[in-house]
Amino acid sequence: MEQQPVTMSEVARVAGVSVTTVSYVLSGKRPVAPATREAVQAAVAQLGFRLNTVAQSLRTGRSSTAALIIPDIANPFYAELARGLQDTLHEERLHVVVCNTNADRAEELSYLDDLLKRRIDGVVITPQWLTPDDLGPLRAAGIPVVISADSGLDDPDLDLVRADSREAIDQAVGHLVRQGHRRLGMVVGPSGTPNGDPRLALFRAAARRHGLELPADLVVRGKHTRETGAAGLRRLMARPQPPTAIACVNDRSAIGVLEAAEEMGIKIPSDLALIGHDDIEVASLVRPRLSTIRYPAYEVGATCGRLLLERLDGRVDPVQVALRTRLVLRESA
Amino acid sequence: MEQQPVTMSEVARVAGVSVTTVSYVLSGKRPVAPATREAVQAAVAQLGFRLNTVAQSLRTGRSSTAALIIPDIANPFYAELARGLQDTLHEERLHVVVCNTNADRAEELSYLDDLLKRRIDGVVITPQWLTPDDLGPLRAAGIPVVISADSGLDDPDLDLVRADSREAIDQAVGHLVRQGHRRLGMVVGPSGTPNGDPRLALFRAAARRHGLELPADLVVRGKHTRETGAAGLRRLMARPQPPTAIACVNDRSAIGVLEAAEEMGIKIPSDLALIGHDDIEVASLVRPRLSTIRYPAYEVGATCGRLLLERLDGRVDPVQVALRTRLVLRESA
Repeated sequence: MEQQPVTMSEVARVAGVSVTTVSYVLSGKRPVAPATREAVQAAVAQLGFRLNTVAQSLRTGRSSTAALIIPDIANPFYAELARGLQDTLHEERLHVVVCNTNADRAEELSYLDDLLKRRIDGVVITPQWLTPDDLGPLRAAGIPVVISADSGLDDPDLDLVRADSREAIDQAVGHLVRQGHRRLGMVVGPSGTPNGDPRLALFRAAARRHGLELPADLVVRGKHTRETGAAGLRRLMARPQPPTAIACVNDRSAIGVLEAAEEMGIKIPSDLALIGHDDIEVASLVRPRLSTIRYPAYEVGATCGRLLLERLDGRVDPVQVALRTRLVLRESA
Repeated sequence: MEQQPVTMSEVARVAGVSVTTVSYVLSGKRPVAPATREAVQAAVAQLGFRLNTVAQSLRTGRSSTAALIIPDIANPFYAELARGLQDTLHEERLHVVVCNTNADRAEELSYLDDLLKRRIDGVVITPQWLTPDDLGPLRAAGIPVVISADSGLDDPDLDLVRADSREAIDQAVGHLVRQGHRRLGMVVGPSGTPNGDPRLALFRAAARRHGLELPADLVVRGKHTRETGAAGLRRLMARPQPPTAIACVNDRSAIGVLEAAEEMGIKIPSDLALIGHDDIEVASLVRPRLSTIRYPAYEVGATCGRLLLERLDGRVDPVQVALRTRLVLRESA
């Protein structure tokens, strides 16, 4: 019987450090204190550990390919995420192919099935409708999966890169309150997704802390698109007591609000304050310039890439990374 | 020895119609005159033709996958193209995976190699540095290739979807001349690509027809990015006789010009007229709104998809489709 290969987490245990630290020592990509580095190197030597998948590819000259599964290729957030992922994986000679699901569950499943059949080497996914069970076949086949989303599908075994927006959203609501706003509305995604509505929950909690309302009739839903934002504004302004400030789940829908406001003769920010989320490139190009909560897409992608490489290098324990967002105040609020 | 399968072009020859018409009759996607339809159906029956690849996939339930190879995933033009391609192929249960080469020749070759090994079912590509020879291995393996570019790599055997911009560019230059412009500058792509500079050539020819100059020192080169546009403007304005109007090879670089102009205190359009190319979404969102030459990205992708499906259905003869562009005048010129 063949010996089981030594994993990176065994090295981490023997060296008494985290898997990430082992990964940094092995890749040389981040500085690590000399004593720590020596402990890791000693554990590597003792256990006879060697980097497997990626190193193997390098030895055989066979290129590996990871897939990035995203809900909306027209959202520049994902283009930036793809660039960050690609630049990180490129150093290890992994290709990236991008799969666009149009936020459709059948498409999500169909891509997963196809990638499994084609023996993809790893998957980074921003799921819309998938549950942890849907990822079972991939994981059973030993294909590493990294989730990029605000929550991890409630599965602690999955690698996750998420936004830590609590503070930035609190600051955004505080800013609106200081501007005199009392009726806050929100444009969010569809209801019933396994990920829930983490951004809505954060805005609601922040509103409460600041003595502001976020009533149910001022929360409208859609598909994270410009059309959703435009339709959302029309619905919100038709309410008996329309909001004086709107927060959007992403910049795409905020741009839709901006366009519809111009058509409707609503002046931003004097008639209505508007805050987006993500800080995609166009946020600073529109007029008025969009105030938003910056979630650094490129860094999200790069972080997903690092987690994927660690998995390919043998890490077993799940890692969850929260990237701090920050409020960027421009002209719309 | 097995009989050679009957191809769609043989059906077309026998029926006395084009391959496209045969494709429309078989797919039922476009109305075809009854007499023509009957002629095609008679030829199909006579030759014993049957749709092969795609139909086979449908029978076996195996999904097929096509790859879209693009130079810049951050350019929304390609996101729209991808959507058009995907929507068209989706009807035939073909997936699309998107490969971003960052306009790098090594990446282009590496993706082609990888896709060949993974037995991709078809490729749509906007090549940057590839020559027809580079596509040889794919074609030898019977993998259909459709090019989306302004020129077809000078290979009449390749399927090509290109822009027909002669008239729109002529109108753009005419518009600039009527505004009193005499010194036209241009921001274009890198030199030495196999595709050459079709848009530069069209602008130069149009300038001549309108008695306008497009001198060599007013043509600057870069990478089709915002950075290229911004750097290009700085270089152009440092010339002894700077231009009063600038045309850009795409909207991405035009947006870069717009941003740099604001920083430099150059007023658009009063100090400098600016014209882009493509009409990406952001063109109408920036201020001043960008005047541009609209090349319908979604339709480009959908057309590439139709050509690819025809190839998968057995078409042998190459088809080249030129999509007419049109001048969209907004505020920047």
